[in-house]
Amino acid sequence: MATSALALLTGLAPGTSAGFHFVDPDAVHLEIRDLGVIRGDGIFETIGVAFGAPQAVEAHLARFTASALALDLPAPDPELWREVILAVSATLAHQPESFVRTVITRGIEGTGTTTAWAYGKAAADYSRERGSGVRVITLDRGYPHTISATAPWLLAGAKTLSYAVNTAALREANRRGADEVIFLSSDGLVLEGPTSTVIARLDGRLLTPGPGLPILAGTTQTAVFEIAESLGIPCGLALLGTHDLLRADAVWLVSSVRYAVPVVALDGHDLVIDRDITRTLNAALGARRA
Amino acid sequence: MATSALALLTGLAPGTSAGFHFVDPDAVHLEIRDLGVIRGDGIFETIGVAFGAPQAVEAHLARFTASALALDLPAPDPELWREVILAVSATLAHQPESFVRTVITRGIEGTGTTTAWAYGKAAADYSRERGSGVRVITLDRGYPHTISATAPWLLAGAKTLSYAVNTAALREANRRGADEVIFLSSDGLVLEGPTSTVIARLDGRLLTPGPGLPILAGTTQTAVFEIAESLGIPCGLALLGTHDLLRADAVWLVSSVRYAVPVVALDGHDLVIDRDITRTLNAALGARRA
Repeated sequence: MATSALALLTGLAPGTSAGFHFVDPDAVHLEIRDLGVIRGDGIFETIGVAFGAPQAVEAHLARFTASALALDLPAPDPELWREVILAVSATLAHQPESFVRTVITRGIEGTGTTTAWAYGKAAADYSRERGSGVRVITLDRGYPHTISATAPWLLAGAKTLSYAVNTAALREANRRGADEVIFLSSDGLVLEGPTSTVIARLDGRLLTPGPGLPILAGTTQTAVFEIAESLGIPCGLALLGTHDLLRADAVWLVSSVRYAVPVVALDGHDLVIDRDITRTLNAALGARRA
Repeated sequence: MATSALALLTGLAPGTSAGFHFVDPDAVHLEIRDLGVIRGDGIFETIGVAFGAPQAVEAHLARFTASALALDLPAPDPELWREVILAVSATLAHQPESFVRTVITRGIEGTGTTTAWAYGKAAADYSRERGSGVRVITLDRGYPHTISATAPWLLAGAKTLSYAVNTAALREANRRGADEVIFLSSDGLVLEGPTSTVIARLDGRLLTPGPGLPILAGTTQTAVFEIAESLGIPCGLALLGTHDLLRADAVWLVSSVRYAVPVVALDGHDLVIDRDITRTLNAALGARRA
């Protein structure tokens, strides 16, 4: 049984007919001149897949399109990408949990043709994180919470291949004995994790940072809010500080493949884990088939 | 006559013997699972090469090593990289101007082995930019000038593959009818260009932004200062604002392949070009053979 699959998109040059074909995921496929490689100049999405069914595809495609717009890349053809995502996901139908990563790079300099692929793989086992939670530190993201409006060229809120800062932040967390990071704006507002969205339960409501912040639109956060509202829990956006997270009666990092991971400590302060609601949320997130 | 060449480094796994071999630069060589590709998680240098002689190799190797340290990558072996850079440069001995780009990525997730290569190519013709200058706009880099000291995980000052912001800034310049960008800190200090260092002549001295700013150590700026000092022009570091550049009697963007490019307009204000000193600097930069 395959545990990974790779489809390369073809015919992406203007005026040609686009398609895709499956190739060996462990072979080489990229030139070293690709701007995705040498400039991190491209975009991606990581889509959760349950028994071969990709989740929140439309939300991911909407964000993929928004990222393309932010980087002046050609808008991805939603019909083609839907087809590719479904085809790659289908190869992982025997896996309870897997993911499909979609990527578009600016391609080889001077050609004007993007490079694109969809890669699927069995997910790691996240049951420990979902059950016992992660230890989190806050780190300064360097810019004020208003930066998206004033400096769109900084691409805050676009999901680009330029993730070196995100991975450096996670290494800083590990150095400090923690597992994960919540970025703060330079003026002290809660932003997001390097690969996750923050949700806190405060005064009986689920809150996520917003609106207008330099963060990604969370596809899994949207799903969590839908689930919570169906359970009668009100949800909303708020500008939050670290003090809000410390007084919250539950904080989660949510993302497409790990689902809802409770925060068990923040900057060395213990936080309460609500195991029941976490289990409920993760069961509902895992049960999605679209 | 070859106009490009590519050497892949081999044996980079711990405990093995490292080397390199030449391959077809236009063939595919990278897996889509490489963290350099999907996370922009890697470092690079671009070294100017004149008739096959790489320039400022030791300064580039020192910065390459500093970037590796900032990203917790294994330190590049200077002896091996010197050899690779010389070998790739030698294939371009018939080219008056070319460049070698050295790259190290974090490699394929989970392997713990970096991916590395050196790519050489004939340079574009920059005689127009060097002669007539470029139109520049200033753009906010989003963070204060002290950010390197307070938030090293933002990797300011490391030359990473995560350059999507740098290319987005250049597109913003083009949208505004300009050719180039000078980044400012959020508190208004001159930082650097997306791929260049700023030098201004003020009151008879050449000044470059510093010290302690979140910018790259400029290898070409160092060479320009050596040349200028040999001509009796004093040089130094300074914290500069846009108003300093506007009252300067010459401003340049300097980089390894384009050399010294005069700034002919800044945010729509015309600046004076000193053609004589620019010609002198570029002749001296081009004459370097180490």
